[in-house]
Amino acid sequence: DHDNYSSSSSLLLLPSVMVAYVWGAMVGLAMKVCKFVKKAWKMGLDDPRKFIHGLKVGVALSAVSLFYYMKPLYNGVGGNSMWAVMTVVVVFEYTAGATISKVINRICGTSLAGFLAIGVHWLASRAGEQWGPLIAGVSLFLLASAATFSRFIPIIKARFDYGCMVFILTFCLVSVSGFRVEKLLDLAQQRVSTVIIGTCLCIIVSMTICPIWAGKELHLLLTNNLDKLANSLQGSVDQYFNNNQQEGVSDEDCRKKLIGYKCVLSSKATEETMANLARWEPAHGRFNFRHPWKQYVKIGASMRTCASCLDALIACINSHNQASDHIKKKLSSISVKLGSKSAEVIREVATTMRNMRKSSKVDMLVVEMNNAAQELRDLLNNSHSNNLLVIPQKPPTTEDDQEVGPVVVELNNMMMIPVMEIIQVVTVASLLIETVSRVEDIVKT
Amino acid sequence: DHDNYSSSSSLLLLPSVMVAYVWGAMVGLAMKVCKFVKKAWKMGLDDPRKFIHGLKVGVALSAVSLFYYMKPLYNGVGGNSMWAVMTVVVVFEYTAGATISKVINRICGTSLAGFLAIGVHWLASRAGEQWGPLIAGVSLFLLASAATFSRFIPIIKARFDYGCMVFILTFCLVSVSGFRVEKLLDLAQQRVSTVIIGTCLCIIVSMTICPIWAGKELHLLLTNNLDKLANSLQGSVDQYFNNNQQEGVSDEDCRKKLIGYKCVLSSKATEETMANLARWEPAHGRFNFRHPWKQYVKIGASMRTCASCLDALIACINSHNQASDHIKKKLSSISVKLGSKSAEVIREVATTMRNMRKSSKVDMLVVEMNNAAQELRDLLNNSHSNNLLVIPQKPPTTEDDQEVGPVVVELNNMMMIPVMEIIQVVTVASLLIETVSRVEDIVKT
Repeated sequence: DHDNYSSSSSLLLLPSVMVAYVWGAMVGLAMKVCKFVKKAWKMGLDDPRKFIHGLKVGVALSAVSLFYYMKPLYNGVGGNSMWAVMTVVVVFEYTAGATISKVINRICGTSLAGFLAIGVHWLASRAGEQWGPLIAGVSLFLLASAATFSRFIPIIKARFDYGCMVFILTFCLVSVSGFRVEKLLDLAQQRVSTVIIGTCLCIIVSMTICPIWAGKELHLLLTNNLDKLANSLQGSVDQYFNNNQQEGVSDEDCRKKLIGYKCVLSSKATEETMANLARWEPAHGRFNFRHPWKQYVKIGASMRTCASCLDALIACINSHNQASDHIKKKLSSISVKLGSKSAEVIREVATTMRNMRKSSKVDMLVVEMNNAAQELRDLLNNSHSNNLLVIPQKPPTTEDDQEVGPVVVELNNMMMIPVMEIIQVVTVASLLIETVSRVEDIVKT
Repeated sequence: DHDNYSSSSSLLLLPSVMVAYVWGAMVGLAMKVCKFVKKAWKMGLDDPRKFIHGLKVGVALSAVSLFYYMKPLYNGVGGNSMWAVMTVVVVFEYTAGATISKVINRICGTSLAGFLAIGVHWLASRAGEQWGPLIAGVSLFLLASAATFSRFIPIIKARFDYGCMVFILTFCLVSVSGFRVEKLLDLAQQRVSTVIIGTCLCIIVSMTICPIWAGKELHLLLTNNLDKLANSLQGSVDQYFNNNQQEGVSDEDCRKKLIGYKCVLSSKATEETMANLARWEPAHGRFNFRHPWKQYVKIGASMRTCASCLDALIACINSHNQASDHIKKKLSSISVKLGSKSAEVIREVATTMRNMRKSSKVDMLVVEMNNAAQELRDLLNNSHSNNLLVIPQKPPTTEDDQEVGPVVVELNNMMMIPVMEIIQVVTVASLLIETVSRVEDIVKT
């Protein structure tokens, strides 16, 4: 009876265990999804424009699908309004510059391919039954190969990559359809008109509802990166010379500032893409149509050389070779001064860029920075008169067989202190001077 | 009469001048085009696989357009075989990994969106005339917005960006067509089947005709970069210490070697993209399906820290502060030794990666390198006993009121030599050691 009971209970238990297991797995999955959604939501809150972009796409698509719902419009463009929907989905991008560049690419690619395809079709239809398909096939093969190959050419890849793809696509569709659809010209015309409807809608939505300009983004990115660089530089020098005894600044905050320069190192691709897109944008805000976007890329490059220098500096600070306190103290004040001066110069450049006005203060600050660097250099060069490498010690009180007095004692106690960290500052400073002076004559706003 | 003659001659001249002008402009344009084509052709010859890729796309498109020419096949999939052409154009990428990733994205996106759209359509048709369009419109708006937003999430952006776009596209097309095309299920089924035909063709062509594997490319890129790094390191150290008196090596060649490390610095984005694509690829060559591609990214990152260190080193060498010949000579042999040892370690790591076999030589070389670094460090630390900072001078022969003998003379003549460059070598070496030891336990092939 007992056995029976237990076996029946286990039989009763089995499904409930399975249910519990499945339930557990589902809860786990739901938790994961929940976490993921939460993370995504947080990302959206950090930059609400991402939400807005999503809504903009929704608006554009709803607007374009109205063409389908409204009878008169539908009859106007025919069943091909599908192409308008497709255009919106494919062309709509985050920044206005990207959208415009894709629109131009799409229109150019579509029309060029359309004309070519119609020309080939006309030629093929003239050539007769036997040679026609051959001409069409060979031209398709050759043009597709050539266009694909041309996408590898750097300048085309940067600006007309999408155009090439659309060219291949349209050419294939039109030339292949040519053998079935009799009204080829109608097809081509419809496709072009729907593409134009779609692109116009994209441009209107992208440029009127909270537009996001690639140029403005690039401008912000660069000025913020300059600030980050300045903070990192000053922060690392201050920290090294134990000068960061300010209250109210948490360690976490400090650490965040220090690693700010890493953003500068990794922003190359973003900058180049944005500069490429910004050139398509019309005048907006304080930016003209032919704003010197290329200069931004150059500034970015010089910032990166500066940041990689800072990287080496920080690596030095974190390395095992520690300088003696003696030399550290000697060099502390001037190094901290140099660090803050360089940071000031970078900040002033950032301000100049922000205001887009040549500031007279920059020149002055550069001179001050150079002076500070020269001071440090002098101090290092005249190390013997400054007792930089010589640690003063009490003269030995034991009276052994020594003859030569305190001078030799000093010489013996002298040690080659790992000057690494301090010299690095000089290196950084000189590189900074180079960079800053380059940045200076680059910014012509 | 004379006037008449000259005016008529100028009238005769005008068109010919214009013709000459237009002709000149055309010749100029033709020259430019010619130059451009030549450049593109040279690029193709440098890497013939780019030509081959163009031809592959041509082959795939010709094959897919056969569906149009062949009656029975055409009747099978209907007039929608256009989708197959489109799929081939959009999906076919340079590397096999990219193609496969796009295929998977496209299939998943299309089928998911198709099912959802049919579900919404069913719901809308149940809701009646009044609420149906509203449900369809709202769901379109919400799903499109959500999918667009999700493309900003980093992990989705890296792997499923294209899938999201296809999802929006298919959903819009199906749900919008739902109000016009009565045979919705047929449309969805045709679209799926044509997409499958197109993707199969793409995969077959991309993986059978001269396949280009992202994984293999990544492997090659990394090993070549390691070699370049080693060459740059050794080259710069050798050049600095005037050790490059080998005959038969031109200056141009040498310079090329030196700037090789810049490739390492700028290859971050490429490496990450390729590692992302390589994970989709099936086993090929000596690579298994679950090859540790993430390790490659890590190795690349440590190579970059190493390269940025080398960058600082080379900047130091090119700076104005020149070390005195005295100290240079003293440190020359050991520095050159250290440089070549480090380069050897990097080369050995490259060889290890190439053979994908753990080499016992690496450990030995690392030990040797560490020894060399220690020697250099010792030399620098014991600078006073080595007279490193003290330049021996002839004792002053003039007999003034000096009392303290040669020791003080030495002390006075001692100068703080800019040890910058040499210390940099130590920095590089220590960083290298770090890097190499990290590289070592990363490579688990």
